[in-house]
Amino acid sequence: MDSREIKAKSIATVRTKAVGREVRDRSNISLIVLDKSLAEALEGIDAFSHLFVIFWMHQTPIEERPALKVHPRGREDMPLVGAFATRTPYRPNPIGLTIVELLKVEGNVLTVRGLDAIDGTPVLDIKPFDYWDVTEGVRVPVWWAKLEKGRKLD
Amino acid sequence: MDSREIKAKSIATVRTKAVGREVRDRSNISLIVLDKSLAEALEGIDAFSHLFVIFWMHQTPIEERPALKVHPRGREDMPLVGAFATRTPYRPNPIGLTIVELLKVEGNVLTVRGLDAIDGTPVLDIKPFDYWDVTEGVRVPVWWAKLEKGRKLD
Repeated sequence: MDSREIKAKSIATVRTKAVGREVRDRSNISLIVLDKSLAEALEGIDAFSHLFVIFWMHQTPIEERPALKVHPRGREDMPLVGAFATRTPYRPNPIGLTIVELLKVEGNVLTVRGLDAIDGTPVLDIKPFDYWDVTEGVRVPVWWAKLEKGRKLD
Repeated sequence: MDSREIKAKSIATVRTKAVGREVRDRSNISLIVLDKSLAEALEGIDAFSHLFVIFWMHQTPIEERPALKVHPRGREDMPLVGAFATRTPYRPNPIGLTIVELLKVEGNVLTVRGLDAIDGTPVLDIKPFDYWDVTEGVRVPVWWAKLEKGRKLD
């Protein structure tokens, strides 16, 4: 691995009452509490319906040699695939990315729906979702459809 | 700003011949060259049509106090809005995020279309784009539509 170290800062913290599997419920409502000194950087964000939230999965242990292959969601009936072919937190950088619905902006606090990050998660960046991000013709592997078939959380 | 420092690593490097405005051409084809020790983590990624690429805009000067408000793309005819309401590289963490089309996987090298990162950009993470990421009912501000109206690059 490239030894260049990149230093990022937490710009906000996730606040949610959801625990365990509830965190992945797409109707889950969370707060993103920005550092107050950054509140100004939210101006105009309320004109967007959706945001990308990039966060640091701080409770994922960072191994010296991260898992390069995983069974999606730890399920043995799923094929063993590369970490970059999944959304596993066990990846070289434990970065999470979720597209959320923006419900409200009040001062330095965003209220969002669908953020699958646990309480206390540090946030690295927030970006507006725009028309260039609308993606068509999406193809996924067969295992993905099988994995999600049983998911009835939203 | 939260003083907790987060240490990330470069997992790959962008290779492209595009320079200047060509970088933002959505037909631009780039290579993402992974650290060879991570090649295994790509297994199965070719079954996805699209990927998220999260990168570090290393040539953006990090100011002590980053710009909290910007005119989108530096255009004075655009409103002054918060950095988090735009995709400006002048943000607290100079993280870039682009949804790209995956064209080819060969060993530790991905060939992708639509990555707006300059040659030499360090990559932090690569994630598959799946059906949960398909977003409908997207709303953007009036200025966004005005800004992109003149863009005829793709």
